[in-house]
Parts: sequence; structure tokens; C-alpha cells
Amino acid sequence: MSFGFKNKILRINLENQKIQQEKKGENFYRKYFGGRGLISYFLLRELEPNIDPLSPKNKLIFSCGPITGAPVSGAGRHSVGAKSPLTGGYGESEAGGFWGTELKRAGYDAIIIEGRSEKPVYLWICDDKVEIRNASPLWGKQILQTQEIIQKETKSQSTRIASIGPGGEKLVRFASIIHDLRHVSGRGGMGAVMGSKNLKAVAINGTENVKIAKPQKLKTLAMWMSKNIDRLSHTLHTYGTGAAMDIYETTGNLPVKNFREGIFPHADLISAQTIKKTVSVGMETCFACVVRCKKIVKVDSGPWKVDPAYGGPEYETLAAFGSNCGIDDLKVICKANELCQRYSLDTISTGVTISFAMECFENGMLTLTQTNGINLNFGNKEAMLQMIELIGQRKGIGDLLAEGSKKASKQLGFKTEKFSVQIKGQEVPMHDPRFRRGQGLGYAISPTGADHMHNIYDTLYSQNIPREIQGLGILEPVPIDDLGPKKIRLFHYVSTWNSLDNCLCLCMFTPWSVRQKVALVHYVTGWETTAFELMKVSERATNLARLFNVREGFDRKDDVLPIRLLNPKTNGALSDSSINVKDLEHAKDIYYKMVGWNNKGIPTSEKLMELDIA
Amino acid sequence: MSFGFKNKILRINLENQKIQQEKKGENFYRKYFGGRGLISYFLLRELEPNIDPLSPKNKLIFSCGPITGAPVSGAGRHSVGAKSPLTGGYGESEAGGFWGTELKRAGYDAIIIEGRSEKPVYLWICDDKVEIRNASPLWGKQILQTQEIIQKETKSQSTRIASIGPGGEKLVRFASIIHDLRHVSGRGGMGAVMGSKNLKAVAINGTENVKIAKPQKLKTLAMWMSKNIDRLSHTLHTYGTGAAMDIYETTGNLPVKNFREGIFPHADLISAQTIKKTVSVGMETCFACVVRCKKIVKVDSGPWKVDPAYGGPEYETLAAFGSNCGIDDLKVICKANELCQRYSLDTISTGVTISFAMECFENGMLTLTQTNGINLNFGNKEAMLQMIELIGQRKGIGDLLAEGSKKASKQLGFKTEKFSVQIKGQEVPMHDPRFRRGQGLGYAISPTGADHMHNIYDTLYSQNIPREIQGLGILEPVPIDDLGPKKIRLFHYVSTWNSLDNCLCLCMFTPWSVRQKVALVHYVTGWETTAFELMKVSERATNLARLFNVREGFDRKDDVLPIRLLNPKTNGALSDSSINVKDLEHAKDIYYKMVGWNNKGIPTSEKLMELDIA
Repeated sequence: MSFGFKNKILRINLENQKIQQEKKGENFYRKYFGGRGLISYFLLRELEPNIDPLSPKNKLIFSCGPITGAPVSGAGRHSVGAKSPLTGGYGESEAGGFWGTELKRAGYDAIIIEGRSEKPVYLWICDDKVEIRNASPLWGKQILQTQEIIQKETKSQSTRIASIGPGGEKLVRFASIIHDLRHVSGRGGMGAVMGSKNLKAVAINGTENVKIAKPQKLKTLAMWMSKNIDRLSHTLHTYGTGAAMDIYETTGNLPVKNFREGIFPHADLISAQTIKKTVSVGMETCFACVVRCKKIVKVDSGPWKVDPAYGGPEYETLAAFGSNCGIDDLKVICKANELCQRYSLDTISTGVTISFAMECFENGMLTLTQTNGINLNFGNKEAMLQMIELIGQRKGIGDLLAEGSKKASKQLGFKTEKFSVQIKGQEVPMHDPRFRRGQGLGYAISPTGADHMHNIYDTLYSQNIPREIQGLGILEPVPIDDLGPKKIRLFHYVSTWNSLDNCLCLCMFTPWSVRQKVALVHYVTGWETTAFELMKVSERATNLARLFNVREGFDRKDDVLPIRLLNPKTNGALSDSSINVKDLEHAKDIYYKMVGWNNKGIPTSEKLMELDIA
Repeated sequence: MSFGFKNKILRINLENQKIQQEKKGENFYRKYFGGRGLISYFLLRELEPNIDPLSPKNKLIFSCGPITGAPVSGAGRHSVGAKSPLTGGYGESEAGGFWGTELKRAGYDAIIIEGRSEKPVYLWICDDKVEIRNASPLWGKQILQTQEIIQKETKSQSTRIASIGPGGEKLVRFASIIHDLRHVSGRGGMGAVMGSKNLKAVAINGTENVKIAKPQKLKTLAMWMSKNIDRLSHTLHTYGTGAAMDIYETTGNLPVKNFREGIFPHADLISAQTIKKTVSVGMETCFACVVRCKKIVKVDSGPWKVDPAYGGPEYETLAAFGSNCGIDDLKVICKANELCQRYSLDTISTGVTISFAMECFENGMLTLTQTNGINLNFGNKEAMLQMIELIGQRKGIGDLLAEGSKKASKQLGFKTEKFSVQIKGQEVPMHDPRFRRGQGLGYAISPTGADHMHNIYDTLYSQNIPREIQGLGILEPVPIDDLGPKKIRLFHYVSTWNSLDNCLCLCMFTPWSVRQKVALVHYVTGWETTAFELMKVSERATNLARLFNVREGFDRKDDVLPIRLLNPKTNGALSDSSINVKDLEHAKDIYYKMVGWNNKGIPTSEKLMELDIA
């Protein structure tokens, strides 16, 4: 095997400083690919059941896929996985940028990090040279300073760095890992796992490009996307995510005040168009990608200065700190985004945990004494920013909120449970399943808890079948608010296909069709692969992640929606297609059987046989 | 929709002479394609349950697929379907040649024939002109004369004719339909259904080629096969089927004396190599196909003259009348083949029904009185040929044997049951599941009864994964005699993929890879299709056929192997991997769940939802 993969996995034990290279055969790579496939394989195989995710027994896995580092749009991604300290289940989070490509260029498909270092360290990987270096001077530093020091120490501006800020060090359960200041593995608390290992950063410099089986054909495909991107994806290409805020509000997609309300009159003030007109200093990109959807913002006057080094807010961030916290001041949101990058905090979980606290506060379940005198009302800009810093430092009320809204709610009393908008402990992203009912099922069954990267954007499929998924044999659109058999079939096919991206490490924002993705994998690896095989790779990875959760005690009872999302929005919502428990349970009945799981949501042995999982 | 299909289905009611053209939308064709997909759709939808297959209430459907008539190897096929008079369940049989292409050229994807004509008729279809013509003078005629008279009446040598001989007229339950003298829809008694409708023939002359979406790309692919066929498929290309008779015998694949014994010393005397050296007058082909696997034989001296007009024997025929009847005289076998064509009889069912009678005779369960004095011993050449004529004319003992070995055995007494080598009433083809254990499962679960066209040739997959199926993601070979989870998975994937050919109407003998087949469909139809969608098309068709059988009362209890195949071979077999009932039932347990059927072998409602079957 000489194309696409590097056929080397780096295994580093921080306890005994042992560094090993492992080789797997071609069949391993073809069966699991990378990303979720590879991570779920190793976590299921190597982790003891029921360990504390923040103990040395957890393993942190960085994994590329076959596409990572190929010179083609969408190929700049990798995944990070571990047992999640936020959910206690399978944890995995993807990031774009350049770091994954650098890992491949250094000669590795993945890094498995084991144990805990006695003192803070960082890894310095330069092709075959792998060092565990002292990071004591870096401990406590925010991301930018960390980056600057490491680049100095490694004597290279081109060193690519994955690192954690104080949030990760302090084991905030939703701490993220920041790659090169602005590319984030946000969800599931992978940054806390990194912190628990006393690992400040992984710095990489690689020199050997990924070998491509059919480079000319790949180039032709890459050029095609370059020529067609504006036609296929004009909005994303021009504004990045978050351009449809106002439409989202009227359709019912936009969370308002902790998912409670239905109206947010100034949604347009926090949209990507407004960013472009005000704080934007341009668009950037990930490795080799012509989509160029990454906003860069700068605020250099006023009370909230924002450093463009940290990039800019995505839709999830705009909504989580904006409408969801009752805030329509774009500069404040940009500052919130920057703070989350500095501290390495997931913006979704941070925003929704703060909105949870705000609702508790407004209902008298969190007192001024508990907040150290901060008036934690919806819309209080300063209070929101203070909360981020307190969480990042685990100070005062921040220490409680750093546990995530589920654990915080347990602490604050059962009456606050209805304000905790999370699934399996992970806070719900900014797509309201009371608009997208298929997404509700997706949130409920995702192995990582509420997660929009393991699901479906079915908004698009109510009027026509977009070119991206035509090759799956879905011939008729299904209404957005449907949750019947046709929607469940659509969800099953499309979510399986989309989740493949987490195994390929390909970006969902690149509008490749099914046939083009198959061609991509074929051109990169040379394998005679097909959409059928790729669907099975994705299904296999999803089932492995599911099995991991089953071993940790998860089953059907955990595939639920939070109370808030099972009830209508208040305050005269313009649009509301609530899901009730009966509908959801019925959808689960159908979905489980459709995908070969038993009534408890556990994969049947025959399904595992079918996926060739021993 | 303007490519691949003609978007017209011809419906002809022989009772009231009504001729209609029906149009279906693009989604219909993309969901069901043609062949088995289309036939199972109409039979399930339109037939009343529990009708007599030989009554006017049965419908006979001729169906092409998207590939039929495209200028590319393997595209010369079509299917014929009806409720089978042999099994009482779903009946379907495919044929190669030129007739399907002619139907497409005449402007139709399929013909649905309803009711029963009062007097013998034949259909004359010349593009939009469709006539029901008097066939009284043709009734009783063998195939060659029928062909000559119709060509004369239609004033065209290029008229393509599907017809039945006396076997079909006399409602022999395993009567075939012969297309242009030598291309046969052999299995399941479709010729008897045609006879029951008083329909002697369907003659076609069409003038408009199938429109191809991407003709240049299709041409390139067709040329590739032309250049590579000898490398990819040398034996088939040179000898046709039946070149490995001697190896088959030693491995245990070759049935000997009604599947009883294991040794047939002169297997090489009835092989395709011997044909090439002796009676062959050349190889012919089906429409557009470079495989050219059709043997033509001629015998013009001695007691058994054979007319080359009727083609030559395939492997199934060589074994059914050869080793299976204890006969190693090639000329006799060629004569048997010719007789079956003349009378329109399925060579497999005819051969195995005769071998059944031979074993009954040798065991005293069929007497000389019953056979009208014929010594029906294994190896009696003259007796075997006499039997074919008696069956074709339903005379004497032939009248009983024309019912098939299952019904005949019921008549002759329960002690003969163990000699009846059939499943669901259809006689077992010439691949012994005691060699290929996966094939045993395939025979048992096939909707048409024992049928090698709805299954898998897993012989090939014990040492390496052939290029033809690499795209399915099967990474490791599985031993031929295995019947565990890995074999069942292999069987599920490969049989689903191979059965797709029955929907595309593509020949299984053309060594297209998975990716090439996807390209074929894409180039012909223009659809953005993938292997995933094609697998679902095949699964859908198989489930529809299964549902048809369920409605007729079939379930798990009918998915069995005959007693003979559950016991070892006698007479010092060189190779024997018998299946016992426990193994088979265990394999069914796994297979059913794997494919979404319940414990009774009935598709679950969730599987039907997943396949978008209402």
C-alpha cells in the first residue's frame, strides 16, 4: 500500500516516554479508513470499560483519513478522539486547517497518546524525529503565546501546532483543542483529555507529501471544483457559515434564549452578511480548499477588541452567544469567540451552558451570591464575556459551569433540569429539531451526544434532491417536519453517507456529489472502491462507536431529546414543529430496526457480522 | 427520461384483445429498473393471491432492463416472469440473444400479457403496430418450423421470435420459452404459462436503437472489454461453459446419477474441450457481446443427428443429461439438448426429472409397466432420449414426469421423495452445494426455488477476491466449504450484486467489475447512480419477489435443501462437504437477520421502509 495512507501509526506513552511506530496491513486501512473508523477501532479495542475519562487510562487519538493532505478541496481535516469527559461515552471531534496534512506529511496516519506525563510536556514531531519536550514554561499560557513560543523553540514558522489553553489545562469538560489558532476540535472535551495528560501541544513539521495513485485525474477533479464552487456554493464561498440567520429565525431553526423562545428580531445584526460589512478583514481557507469559508474578524476599537489571529465566529458561535444568550451585538459575539479560542473552549457548549445559567438565574435558581454578584440575565453582554473567562479559569461559578450544563444542573437541583439543553451531556448545537425533525432523531441517536457533525442537514431536502446525494437513490424529497418512514430512510442514508466524511476526513462543506467522492477515494488510494463499500465503512465506524457506548452502559434510554426540545417554543414563535416523546420513540423503533439494532438500540450480532466486525 | 429506457410498456389482454401502451415516470424506472425489479413489481401488484398459475388470471411479463440493447458486451438479455406452475411461487427466467434488444428497438421496455386467448395466437410487434395473429396452423409445431412459418408470414428474416414448442402447449410444468431457436428462458415453466394462454409466439421487428446518454464513453468501455476479454475470461471465451467438467468431478461440484454418487470417471468425455474437438461447428454470441460463449454443435451421422440450428449444450445441460443420468456419450447429450429446444423444455428440470425417474426405476418404485416397457436405468441413452420426447408430448409416463419431480414423487409414493432433488418444486442445477456450501444457502432461499441465476459462484472466492467484486469491500477470501458468518456476509453481498444483473438485464458472464457496471448504467441512462443505489435496486427486487412468495404461503419452512443434498454422496466420492439441517438452519438464522427478514424469513416492515416499498 503506497497511496493515500502513510501506513504508520505513532504510539506515544507519556507515562514511560515510550515512542513506537506501528504498521497495519492494507486491509485494516480499507476496513476502517481513518478518523472515526480508526479512532473507534482503537478505543473499543484498547480502553478498559468504565474508566474515568480524565484518568491516565484514557487514550487521546489524532487521526487523519485517506483524503487528508490530498491536494483537493475539503481535504484539510482530521479527527481527535477519546472517551469523552463530557458524555462518558464515545468522544470525537473533527477540525479543518493544516495540522492533519502536516501529520500526514510527517509520515503518520494517526497518533495514539497514552498515559499521563508527570510534568507538562509537548510533542515535537519532525518526520521520524519525535520528541517529548518540557512544557512547564507554557503551562497556563493562552493559545497565541503557546504558539509563538513553540514556533520559536522549533525554529520554524511553518510548524503546525495543536494546543490547549487554560480551559484544557483546568479540565473544563468541554475544552477544545485549537489547531494553529483557529481550527478547532470543539466538541466532547477532547481538550480536557489532553489537559489530563499534561500535554500542552502537539507540534509538527513534515516534509513528504501524500502520494496520490492517480494524480492527474485528481487534479482534474480539483480544478472542476475550483471552477464550479461559486455556482454550487455561492453563499458559503462568499460569507462562510451564518449567512441565513434571519431566515433561520423565521423558519424556526435559530435557538433564542436557551432554546426557549421563538422570536429574535435582530437576527440580521449577527449574520455573516453583517460581519462582511463590518468586522470582517477577509476570508481564509483550510489546506487546498477553494471553498474558503473561514471568516477572519478584527475589532480594534471600543471595549471589546478582537485579535484577527484567532479567526472569526462560525454560525454555531454566532447563534450560541448571540440569539441563544439574547445578544445581538456582533462585536461581543466576536469577542466571545476569541475568548473561547484563547482558553480553548467549545463555543457551542460554552454558549449553551451560559444560556442555561442565565435561565437558572432569571428563575431564581442561581443567585447573585452564587454568581459573585454578576447579573446573569439574558442579553447581558459583559456578564456573558465574564462567564467565559470564569469557565476558562474554573473560577467562582465558572468552576461549576465548567462541568457542563448536565452536571451543573445536577448540582443546582432537579428544577433546573428543564433548562439543561443537552443530550448525553453534550450541549445541543444551533439547529433546532423543532424545525428539522430529522435532526432531532439525529441528535438523539448520535454516539457523541447532540452533535451536528454526525447528522444530516435535511433542511435542503424538502423541495428537491440536491446533486450531492442523488447517487444514494433517494428519489423524492421529504418535508422538513416529517418524521415518518420516508424521513427515517432519508436520514439513515444521508447521515451514513455524511458520516463517511468523518472517516475520510473530508469536509462536509465541499459540495462533492456521491460519485465525485467515490472518485476522490479511488484517485487518492487507487482502490477499486464504490459508494457501497464507502457506506459500509461509515456504518462500521458508527456501529463501533455505538458498541463503545453500549459497553459504557448507554442504550435506548439515552437516545433522547432534552425536555426543552420536546416542548413548543414560547413567546409567539413564528414556526414550531415540536417533537413529542411518542413520535421520537416511534422513530427510534423504526430506525433501530432499519439499521440492524435491537429494541434497546444495541447492534445485533448479525449486523456486526454483516459489517465484518469480530 | 430519454436514455436507456423506452418509457413504454405494452399491455396485451388476450381475452378481450385489448392492446394498451403504458407510461411510467422516471422514478419508477430508477426504482425498479427492469427484469426482476419490474416483473416482481407488477406480479405483486396485479396478481390475485393463490391463483392457478396455468389459469387466465396469471400474467406473463417479458421485461428488458436499462442495459438491454446498449452496444456493449452482456447487454443482450431480458427476463420473463409469471407465477410459476412448477413452484407455485415467484417465477422468472432470463435469456440472452437478440430478442430483448429487438423489443427495445420496437419501442418497449416490457410486455405484460394477460388472460387467455380462445384460439392459438401469436403476437406480431413491429414498432407501434401490434397485432394478435392466428396461430392455429402453428399449434403442435416444433420451434424451428414455428420460426420459419412466422418469418415467412412477417416477411422478414430479421424478425426475432420467442416461441414455445409442444412442451409449452402441453403445459409441461418446466416448459421453457425459446428465443430464436437457441436462447432460452429455461427455468420455472414460463413456457407452460405461455401455453396456458394459447400464445404460441411473440415475434418482433423494431427499428429504433436504444438512446445512450454518453455514447462515446460507453464505446470506450465496450472497446476495453473487447481488448481484455481473452485475458479476463479465456476459458469461457474459448470453450463456453463446461470446460472444467473433470475438475468439477474431482472437487465434488459435478452431480452424478441424480446427485447420488461422487465419481464419474469419464467427465472429460462430456466437457466443452471435447465438444470443441468433436461436434463443434463454432462459437456464437448474443447481441453486441465479445464473450462469444455460445457453443454450436452439429452431428450429421450415426443414430443421433443434431441440427446446429438449435445451438449447443451449456454446462448445465451437459451435466444434467450426462453425469447426472450416468451418460458419457456427448452426441447423446447434444441430441437431448436439441430435443429440449425443439419441444421447449428446460434442460435442467428435464434432466433431473429423468434422473429422478431412473433412480425410482432402479429401486423398483417405477415399474416396466409404468414406463411402457422402457428400461429406465442410469446410463440408458435411448431411454433418456425417449423420455424427453414422452415428456414433451405428455405421453405415457411422460405425462407424469411433465409435472416435475416433486409432483411426480407425490404420485409415486413418499418413498420416492428422497430421490426428488428439487427446492420449492424446481429441480436443482448442476452445482452441488456439498461442494459449494454457500450455494446451498443460495438454493434454499432463492425465491424461484433451486436456481443458480439468483445466487453466487463462490468457487472463485476461496483463494482471492476476483476483480469483479472487489468494489463491494470484501477483503478476505472465505473457504468454499465454509458456511459461517463470513461466508454468509460474502453470500449476501455477492448474491445481491449478482442478482442486480437480473434487473439490469446484463449477463453474469461478462467480467465487468463493480465500478465498470456502475459506469455502464451511468453511461447508458445518464443517471448519477452508484453501487450503493444499484445494490438497493437489487435488494428491492429480491424483497418484492420474496413478498410475492409470502403472499402465496411460502416462508422459512420452504427454504430447505432436498434430502439428497443433506446427505453425503455414495460410491467413494472424491470430495464431499455435506450440509446438515442444523448448519443450514443456523445459516438461515444469520442470513435472515442480516438482510432484514424476521425469523420466519419474511421481510420486516422496517426493511420494506428502508427499501422504499410501500
